[in-house]
Amino acid sequence: MFYHENKLQYTVEVEEPNPAFAKMLQQAIGGIEGEMRVALQYFFQAAAVPDEHAEYREALRDTAAEELSHIELLATAVNKNLEGADISVADGFSSVAAQQPRHFLSSGMHALPNDADGVPFDGSWIVATGNLASDMYANIMAESAGRLLASRLYEMTDDSGMKDMLAFLIARDTMHQNQWISILKDLGDPEELLDVHPIPDSFPDEVENQEFNYAYLSTNVEPQDDPGHPWTSGESPDMEGEFEFIDQHDLEGAPVEVSEADPRTYNDPAPQDED
Amino acid sequence: MFYHENKLQYTVEVEEPNPAFAKMLQQAIGGIEGEMRVALQYFFQAAAVPDEHAEYREALRDTAAEELSHIELLATAVNKNLEGADISVADGFSSVAAQQPRHFLSSGMHALPNDADGVPFDGSWIVATGNLASDMYANIMAESAGRLLASRLYEMTDDSGMKDMLAFLIARDTMHQNQWISILKDLGDPEELLDVHPIPDSFPDEVENQEFNYAYLSTNVEPQDDPGHPWTSGESPDMEGEFEFIDQHDLEGAPVEVSEADPRTYNDPAPQDED
Amino acid sequence: MFYHENKLQYTVEVEEPNPAFAKMLQQAIGGIEGEMRVALQYFFQAAAVPDEHAEYREALRDTAAEELSHIELLATAVNKNLEGADISVADGFSSVAAQQPRHFLSSGMHALPNDADGVPFDGSWIVATGNLASDMYANIMAESAGRLLASRLYEMTDDSGMKDMLAFLIARDTMHQNQWISILKDLGDPEELLDVHPIPDSFPDEVENQEFNYAYLSTNVEPQDDPGHPWTSGESPDMEGEFEFIDQHDLEGAPVEVSEADPRTYNDPAPQDED
Amino acid sequence: MFYHENKLQYTVEVEEPNPAFAKMLQQAIGGIEGEMRVALQYFFQAAAVPDEHAEYREALRDTAAEELSHIELLATAVNKNLEGADISVADGFSSVAAQQPRHFLSSGMHALPNDADGVPFDGSWIVATGNLASDMYANIMAESAGRLLASRLYEMTDDSGMKDMLAFLIARDTMHQNQWISILKDLGDPEELLDVHPIPDSFPDEVENQEFNYAYLSTNVEPQDDPGHPWTSGESPDMEGEFEFIDQHDLEGAPVEVSEADPRTYNDPAPQDED
Amino acid sequence: MFYHENKLQYTVEVEEPNPAFAKMLQQAIGGIEGEMRVALQYFFQAAAVPDEHAEYREALRDTAAEELSHIELLATAVNKNLEGADISVADGFSSVAAQQPRHFLSSGMHALPNDADGVPFDGSWIVATGNLASDMYANIMAESAGRLLASRLYEMTDDSGMKDMLAFLIARDTMHQNQWISILKDLGDPEELLDVHPIPDSFPDEVENQEFNYAYLSTNVEPQDDPGHPWTSGESPDMEGEFEFIDQHDLEGAPVEVSEADPRTYNDPAPQDED
Amino acid sequence: MFYHENKLQYTVEVEEPNPAFAKMLQQAIGGIEGEMRVALQYFFQAAAVPDEHAEYREALRDTAAEELSHIELLATAVNKNLEGADISVADGFSSVAAQQPRHFLSSGMHALPNDADGVPFDGSWIVATGNLASDMYANIMAESAGRLLASRLYEMTDDSGMKDMLAFLIARDTMHQNQWISILKDLGDPEELLDVHPIPDSFPDEVENQEFNYAYLSTNVEPQDDPGHPWTSGESPDMEGEFEFIDQHDLEGAPVEVSEADPRTYNDPAPQDED
Repeated sequence: MFYHENKLQYTVEVEEPNPAFAKMLQQAIGGIEGEMRVALQYFFQAAAVPDEHAEYREALRDTAAEELSHIELLATAVNKNLEGADISVADGFSSVAAQQPRHFLSSGMHALPNDADGVPFDGSWIVATGNLASDMYANIMAESAGRLLASRLYEMTDDSGMKDMLAFLIARDTMHQNQWISILKDLGDPEELLDVHPIPDSFPDEVENQEFNYAYLSTNVEPQDDPGHPWTSGESPDMEGEFEFIDQHDLEGAPVEVSEADPRTYNDPAPQDED
Repeated sequence: MFYHENKLQYTVEVEEPNPAFAKMLQQAIGGIEGEMRVALQYFFQAAAVPDEHAEYREALRDTAAEELSHIELLATAVNKNLEGADISVADGFSSVAAQQPRHFLSSGMHALPNDADGVPFDGSWIVATGNLASDMYANIMAESAGRLLASRLYEMTDDSGMKDMLAFLIARDTMHQNQWISILKDLGDPEELLDVHPIPDSFPDEVENQEFNYAYLSTNVEPQDDPGHPWTSGESPDMEGEFEFIDQHDLEGAPVEVSEADPRTYNDPAPQDED
Repeated sequence: MFYHENKLQYTVEVEEPNPAFAKMLQQAIGGIEGEMRVALQYFFQAAAVPDEHAEYREALRDTAAEELSHIELLATAVNKNLEGADISVADGFSSVAAQQPRHFLSSGMHALPNDADGVPFDGSWIVATGNLASDMYANIMAESAGRLLASRLYEMTDDSGMKDMLAFLIARDTMHQNQWISILKDLGDPEELLDVHPIPDSFPDEVENQEFNYAYLSTNVEPQDDPGHPWTSGESPDMEGEFEFIDQHDLEGAPVEVSEADPRTYNDPAPQDED
Repeated sequence: MFYHENKLQYTVEVEEPNPAFAKMLQQAIGGIEGEMRVALQYFFQAAAVPDEHAEYREALRDTAAEELSHIELLATAVNKNLEGADISVADGFSSVAAQQPRHFLSSGMHALPNDADGVPFDGSWIVATGNLASDMYANIMAESAGRLLASRLYEMTDDSGMKDMLAFLIARDTMHQNQWISILKDLGDPEELLDVHPIPDSFPDEVENQEFNYAYLSTNVEPQDDPGHPWTSGESPDMEGEFEFIDQHDLEGAPVEVSEADPRTYNDPAPQDED
Repeated sequence: MFYHENKLQYTVEVEEPNPAFAKMLQQAIGGIEGEMRVALQYFFQAAAVPDEHAEYREALRDTAAEELSHIELLATAVNKNLEGADISVADGFSSVAAQQPRHFLSSGMHALPNDADGVPFDGSWIVATGNLASDMYANIMAESAGRLLASRLYEMTDDSGMKDMLAFLIARDTMHQNQWISILKDLGDPEELLDVHPIPDSFPDEVENQEFNYAYLSTNVEPQDDPGHPWTSGESPDMEGEFEFIDQHDLEGAPVEVSEADPRTYNDPAPQDED
Repeated sequence: MFYHENKLQYTVEVEEPNPAFAKMLQQAIGGIEGEMRVALQYFFQAAAVPDEHAEYREALRDTAAEELSHIELLATAVNKNLEGADISVADGFSSVAAQQPRHFLSSGMHALPNDADGVPFDGSWIVATGNLASDMYANIMAESAGRLLASRLYEMTDDSGMKDMLAFLIARDTMHQNQWISILKDLGDPEELLDVHPIPDSFPDEVENQEFNYAYLSTNVEPQDDPGHPWTSGESPDMEGEFEFIDQHDLEGAPVEVSEADPRTYNDPAPQDED
């Protein structure tokens, strides 16, 4: 169950309303790097954690609820940046019309569940695989892309209120990156971050193809020698193999085979055309 | 520039065609965990790598081209699983009709650029942020989810040909997880995988909010004490902070403020309604 | 069957072409509040009305055809607003390029089946449930959001031609709101608008949970007393119950239970990891 | 801010796991009639309610939090229906493969943020216009479609646990329909539900076209006389007009005009083609 | 303006209701090859035809209205195939549940604006470029894919009523392919179908790159000689060039250049990381 | 299998970076008329061509690989147009913010897999029907829309580097239009381009409805006489029929029939409501 409190998690001040920045902030609400995605991602991941790992579930639920609070912060920031916005199209481009028209037309000067281009939030972005190691990578990635987005938003504005709010969100993303890494470590041998690899670690090693599982494949049309990068030779980071370097020209490959068209498909030209 | 060779990267045999498995394989072609996503993701990431990091660009391009070859393997596997499929709807459910109707109706018994439910591939899944550390997490995550998917497909089938092809794809995902981790290490201090954190590492530390950047936030409605998990106390994995535990009830918060409706929005009820 | 007539339903004049307003008008064509949605919604609803209610079907078909005529009006208005538009990107933002580039690039200066941000019309917005009472609410809602949109468009422009066209569309939305309300009343006891509630009214009252069907639930983290609003106490508007007020803290609730991972899913960490 | 409690709002029991019903339940999670939509809809609507109407905001936030709890109930029900599901494709159709393959392939036997067909939740479904009257219709409609969906799910299953959970959800939808109607009444004259019409009521009556705002338009190709329905003659339900009946054949209409192609568009055939 | 008539364009009989075939028919309603797409495509194309080509506009409007009638036929066929369908999930797969659950859950046994997989109709499929020659190819292609779909549906069913309806729709697609070809011929020299090529023909020939406009490019990794196909040598079908054969290995190409990261983007690793 | 070469297919120079033009170029990358679509379309079509038509498969694969190279050209052009872009929102509209904000926020000044409005590439645009004649029309159409787009982009810019790159892409589209036409001719009697019609040609002529397969249908509400256009009378272009002209008023049509609601659907108003 969920509860709400009628406070914001952090102060949201806007010195000078700016509908252009309202448009930018939408990326952090409804974009793929945004808060709707992480809130729902942690929610759905939590719903898949079995009871014996309740401590991970609690972390996911703690943070799911927090991310909802971040949507609130950002929605408030959007509202405040839209106050008093020019809505006239008379000069074609100096108004909300050239920015995000739906901030006026669809929401009446309020936040939208969309990204900065007006593309709606998409549920397909919510990653919840049931495998916690895989999900933790999804989460570190989401918090990295989120912190990167907030840093770029910070760069775009001179408004001290907005910079303060973003510095808070950037800090939370620092924390969340760290907490998901901690859990990733905790899943396997806590001394070895990469102990959980390859993900899923429970797939039996002996069943995977042993010829190609640590082979770097060069597909350069100019045949290449091993450049000796850490990813082409030496021990693999999962400590389960030794990298080798293969040039695709040297692969034997297999023939392409596509069968004759099935007449029921009407895939002309086909044998039945000829009579 | 790109070239093609008229060979498959690996042998694709199907002992017994099975349109149900053809439907399953679509997830590995056009699903969010699939090969279209990684092929295009590495392609777009490569296009953003500056010349001074050409070795990372080469790795991305090598693997982008390889992933295209994987789509070919899977498309061949779909084709072969659909051979001779029953298309009649007479008994309602024992045919391709109850599986993926568009395998017959739209593609004439061939692979589709869709997931297992027929939902089309979506370009929004392609992650290419310009920040290599963030992108490497996106890639490890994609290869983790991809290997997990291939493992589950392996579990679904008894067809020895399909199992052999999947064991190959699982091996490639092992390799790709390892190569992206190697590059992630190479981006910072190669002795410290987490040296690149927090991502983006170039955002000035002193600017982010220092009160909340290593604070675990509990949002449990029952007030909690620090449970002493590795993610609630102790040194943070990025080695830049010390975790602390905060209960949300103890946050001061900030007031919610939403301004009176702007009459131009016709957001009734509003002052102008009252006359 | 359908017929067309080579006239517009109403005069469309544009005093001064304005590509910014052309962009705005797209919301009324292909946006969720727009005419494509209502035209197709009424069309699909009509196709589900049984013969014994042919009078409702006729109203839906009458209005479906009318909404097609509204798309024509708006498409004409878009065309006229785009006449002679500056297409150069030389100054970066004073041209159609900063407005809706696809008005030039994709349609050659004509209307698009998209919203004001260029997001395509989406068939998922078409509501046709088979239950006429539920559908009438969908229709009143669509006409309310549509009239609100047209009012806001009216506010954005000083073009007398555009204002005249919008005043016509606003009038039609007034009518359509009223006609769907009339039908909603007609579905049950015509003297009682709310007689059709709860929707669907045919679900047996005694089967629904009798403890929670008129209980207002407060989820405020600060425990609340009944504030005595019309929606927390007193008779319910459907005249079938008496509101009561419950604080979520007082709910007994039920335990969360998530089973141990099924090993076939490779949902690590799982029992098979431990050996 | 938001909080979570580690209890479910209601008991979720499944007598006999059934992956087919797990697929059905997805419609109530991620479908357009589902709980993700209403939770987020109330959340975004609340963020637009000005401080002077805090009582409406509280109702929206109370119910937004509750709907999150409903997603939990349904996710638990999906999990339990998937327990022990047959995943083999060997017989093609009697397994999860013929139902929702992504319940195994993508989530490892857990709920997805998708509808019953696997189509992802779409943020465009979230209606929050800034106009409370319009939004209340969106909410009554959402709760009507939601209760209808739950009633149909009730009809599909014989599982007593599932029927009990659905009877609870149906009851909550009864309540929510009633509470939004109460607020709709409260927005205008509480004695007159339709006082807020036409929506938006603040648009000046005298500006809308007075000839067409209460005119029923017949578009039947066979010319029709007024059938005397309550929506073609008599007082309009908003009590602001008198219905009249118009046959579209009798409309004067306006000429269609599409200008010659602009040569910059390369809209052949065009004048420049002729030489 | 548009009118409706309360008749179907053709008789729709279903001998034996079959919910599996109802699901299949959805592809012809809301799929990319379906009637919603062509109805709206012709509608939007017509709205872009200038007055001096009113004869083409009339053909587009005549057929737009007809395609709406085809949606009606198919919706009726869906309704009839769903009559009396088994909705129980008790045996998991022999019912509407294993087919298209939303035929029951969302529309109450009626047609949906979706494809056979339940993916909603998408406005992005509507092609209306403003260039009639380009649009006519879009139309021939749409009618070809549509006739192919109807032929495959014909193959799937033994129901004589459904076969009769499909034979009618196949005939209409024959006609529509022919009428759009006729108009394509009429756009240029009516004796030369390909006179309108290359499309757009009004782009000045001398401006396009003259070295590569009739050069077939082989990208085979094995260097190839001209195989002498009609598309690698000889006169081009547009009668404006002579094909030649080029091997990509022989292209000079140009260097790849990606600039150093802009520090404002936080695209690590970047110069500012190094201190 | 695929290979890459570290060269661009053609030189990409930008005289003066222009973020507005970077936004425009996105339409040619990720728009429906763009290179991602054709690259993947040819890739999927090739995977469906049976071995006995390997020459068509080779043409599709040759061109699929080439189109990937075109994405590279355009991505490079986007990168170069974004160099040094103003990212400040201080003046609201003269920056990348008013153009494509995600060029900064999401990709750090690089190309996106989106169209000019930021709408993501959509896999549903990839047409691969299995029928080569139908697919060739899809390809001619794609290359026509693509060349039209490139011509319009040419018109928008004064940058000589961009004009040179576009002149190259326009030339390639000329070639590709011609090569697909050549293959279309080659599929049937090479002397008769239209020999493959009606598509699919293998559907038995005698089965389609013979009354309506060459009948032009006028749906004009004003009854029309045959205007004697080449598409209303005379021999059909497929040389298999004679056009005739029918007025829809003269069609007999068939009755509309929608059955009484099934009580299991709760489609009120229904018989069970009445007690």
